[in-house]
Amino acid sequence: MSKIVNIDWKPNKKSNEPVYKQIVNYMNKKVASGDWAIGNKLPAQRELAKAFNVNRSTVVMAIEELKSYGILEGLAGSGTVVAENTWSILMSSNETNWGSHLESGYFMESLPTIQTINEYEFVDKIRRLGTGEMSPKLFPKEYFNNALRKLSGEISSLNYLEPLGLESLRETIAKRMRSIGINANPKNVLITAGSLQALQLISICMLKKESTVYCEVPSYINSLRVFQSAGMRMKGINMDGEGIQYWNMKEENTNYDSVLYTIPTNHNPTGTTMSLNRRKELYSYCKANRIPIIEDDAYGELTFDKASPNTIKSIDESGMILYLGTVSKSFAPGLRIGWVVGPESVIERLGDVKMNVDYGASSISQLIINELFVNGDYDKFIVENKSRLRRRRDIMLNAMDKYFTEIGRWNIPEGGYYVWTELKDKISMEALFKNALSKKILLNPGYIYDIRNKNKFIRMSYIYLDEDEIEVAVKDLSIIIKEMKKS
Amino acid sequence: MSKIVNIDWKPNKKSNEPVYKQIVNYMNKKVASGDWAIGNKLPAQRELAKAFNVNRSTVVMAIEELKSYGILEGLAGSGTVVAENTWSILMSSNETNWGSHLESGYFMESLPTIQTINEYEFVDKIRRLGTGEMSPKLFPKEYFNNALRKLSGEISSLNYLEPLGLESLRETIAKRMRSIGINANPKNVLITAGSLQALQLISICMLKKESTVYCEVPSYINSLRVFQSAGMRMKGINMDGEGIQYWNMKEENTNYDSVLYTIPTNHNPTGTTMSLNRRKELYSYCKANRIPIIEDDAYGELTFDKASPNTIKSIDESGMILYLGTVSKSFAPGLRIGWVVGPESVIERLGDVKMNVDYGASSISQLIINELFVNGDYDKFIVENKSRLRRRRDIMLNAMDKYFTEIGRWNIPEGGYYVWTELKDKISMEALFKNALSKKILLNPGYIYDIRNKNKFIRMSYIYLDEDEIEVAVKDLSIIIKEMKKS
Repeated sequence: MSKIVNIDWKPNKKSNEPVYKQIVNYMNKKVASGDWAIGNKLPAQRELAKAFNVNRSTVVMAIEELKSYGILEGLAGSGTVVAENTWSILMSSNETNWGSHLESGYFMESLPTIQTINEYEFVDKIRRLGTGEMSPKLFPKEYFNNALRKLSGEISSLNYLEPLGLESLRETIAKRMRSIGINANPKNVLITAGSLQALQLISICMLKKESTVYCEVPSYINSLRVFQSAGMRMKGINMDGEGIQYWNMKEENTNYDSVLYTIPTNHNPTGTTMSLNRRKELYSYCKANRIPIIEDDAYGELTFDKASPNTIKSIDESGMILYLGTVSKSFAPGLRIGWVVGPESVIERLGDVKMNVDYGASSISQLIINELFVNGDYDKFIVENKSRLRRRRDIMLNAMDKYFTEIGRWNIPEGGYYVWTELKDKISMEALFKNALSKKILLNPGYIYDIRNKNKFIRMSYIYLDEDEIEVAVKDLSIIIKEMKKS
Repeated sequence: MSKIVNIDWKPNKKSNEPVYKQIVNYMNKKVASGDWAIGNKLPAQRELAKAFNVNRSTVVMAIEELKSYGILEGLAGSGTVVAENTWSILMSSNETNWGSHLESGYFMESLPTIQTINEYEFVDKIRRLGTGEMSPKLFPKEYFNNALRKLSGEISSLNYLEPLGLESLRETIAKRMRSIGINANPKNVLITAGSLQALQLISICMLKKESTVYCEVPSYINSLRVFQSAGMRMKGINMDGEGIQYWNMKEENTNYDSVLYTIPTNHNPTGTTMSLNRRKELYSYCKANRIPIIEDDAYGELTFDKASPNTIKSIDESGMILYLGTVSKSFAPGLRIGWVVGPESVIERLGDVKMNVDYGASSISQLIINELFVNGDYDKFIVENKSRLRRRRDIMLNAMDKYFTEIGRWNIPEGGYYVWTELKDKISMEALFKNALSKKILLNPGYIYDIRNKNKFIRMSYIYLDEDEIEVAVKDLSIIIKEMKKS
């Protein structure tokens, strides 16, 4: 028989801290101090409720939280026992970086949704209607495997690389940058493990705590915690058809206490491409107001209708723009290769931090993408793939016309992956997410990109489902929404 | 003619802040505010010294610092001009995370050395006598390229992976872990971009700010900034021939405010392997005192004399140890693949943070290493390579006997990469580093692993130089040291 622990304390109901949380902290402390040892049993829930003088549901909530940290464990037939200490305790009592954001209001809603999405993406036969990655069927198998085969005759070692990344790749990228009007040499280029890592490096070594990061709203960046985790505040600026309404960044910025994060081309999630005019005005405004810019060009090569305007970076002479490129959206996310282009001194600093974070991106990934850039297959694929993207876009827009005209509005993307859909009537997005899941449809609810509009938007993407599945999925989703509106 | 800026201020010589630093801040503010625009010229150094009422050398120091940030630029024939603002200003005025550590005393010494090492490693014909990576000549070309060739017929897509990493790889690793006595299933395994990233993830989401990280002293971990950057304090504990003297971790640890980082097998840089007895005692002590352990087993497979004791993790039943594995030292660092083994709830949390940091390690790297594990070539290489490592170790020890007996003492490593050499007499390590460089020898001075012993130790490694180069390099180094002692 394992020992049953003794409850010698009651929560303070007058405290500002929720009662269940007080119970969590109490139990936590008991395990941390060693008073409650691994294997010790808790009294039955009924008795706990009595001992704490609270409702049973409050006890259940506290126990569930401690179970999620692995501190308690429910054993069938023998109640709840103390399962672990040390690392679990550290995790549950953590007050730094990520911990505090897990507890902040901002992420309480989006985090579970994103975790659920991350999980369900690997469930068999799930229909990923909102996802941000290409169908495996679009993957350029032949080009990729040719590159592998070629390299398999050539690789004679695979050691750590230069702090900024493989030199030949940086030369290739600098050349590609110059071909789109961006003035760059290899020392202006840092290779990262995707653009997300570039953002992380920038946040931990370039930005001040409590500074403001402006972004479009909605924005992909709101689904992440990279800036908030480093102590920055996000501030959303509305968009119109030409892009971000920069004039609403009203603060005084004499101390470089704010930066702008923008996705000017084929914006995620709205699909908007910023007009050339807006780009120029935005640049002038930011220059005059000393707001450095992070330009995320992840979807820049994915324009399939008319050509997009030049990057903002191409009009930058002052070094105030850090440009982010990646092959994750255009070619293959699994390579985990992106790059930052900026002033030498800044790139050098970011590279030094990268060496302290993970010693550089995978060398084999860097060799592969360099081979694909140099032998021309990457660019061939980009061109070939455009017609496929356009056709998929058209299939989705046709289906939208057919099934969504009554219930929503949406943009007409000229590139990228997404149809940003606004529902005419509010609907519980959480319920929709669950109902869709029951029909094996995995959605990206709009609120993960814009918390202010909880029940209005859905990011739909035409990039993952097979062409013949797109219409069926759009139809099935419209039926679910119409059913929900009836009831 | 570009405008010459006007100096309207003088430093306060009574301030605690160094005068040169005051000048840096003044110029910084002038550029940040826009008063000094890009392209504006600074007065000549002589005039600046007069205007500030300081020595010319003070002016030079301030200008050099601002040049290093890219804010000022020296143009041949036309003096110093304002080169950049925005990002450079952000960088120079940054007070968060990395910034504050760059300015803390702890890193002021080691950082430039490590940056220099990182750079010089790529200089042609440099002799890397202290490096932590294998010679390209030891790289298992055939095994690696066979794996590439095999995969080049198989890869049909390369998308994002599960939050914890490629499932088949996690299964393979869990099996390998069980074969060395560690109880693990795939849910206990998180794939990381090398062990360094594992440490970073642990530091940002598991540890409390201002908590203590104990480590051996000297320790490889002191050459990094991963824990300090997340706000932890490092505390070195002396070692003896059996390993860390754990009983010196004297603090009261009732609040889980400290953890231990240890490399028990073929320790970096001392080469010490902790005895089985010490492992058991250490574990009991940490358990009793609630000090969670991070066990870094990077060199665990590199024992070439008698077998090493089992991992500490293999005696852990409470989940208090996070175990770090990697192929960087045993096979190829360029894959950037490591793993953490720990309780499910902890691994899940670390995996969620990893998704927020870089969306996972390179998929192709994960596929390659899984192939090499499964087809047996990885293990074949490990066995074959042992005799090569042993031979190299013997060559270096013979050379040490021949040339270093008068001037130093060293350990006899039974595995790993390093001969940790203590000089009998103190010598300026900075001067030695420079003198060695002039003979094309790149050293790892001991102070980057132990700041307390600045001028006594050198980490030498037998892993990079060719067998016939080792003796010559050891000899050349001994001559340099003997020369320095004479003068």
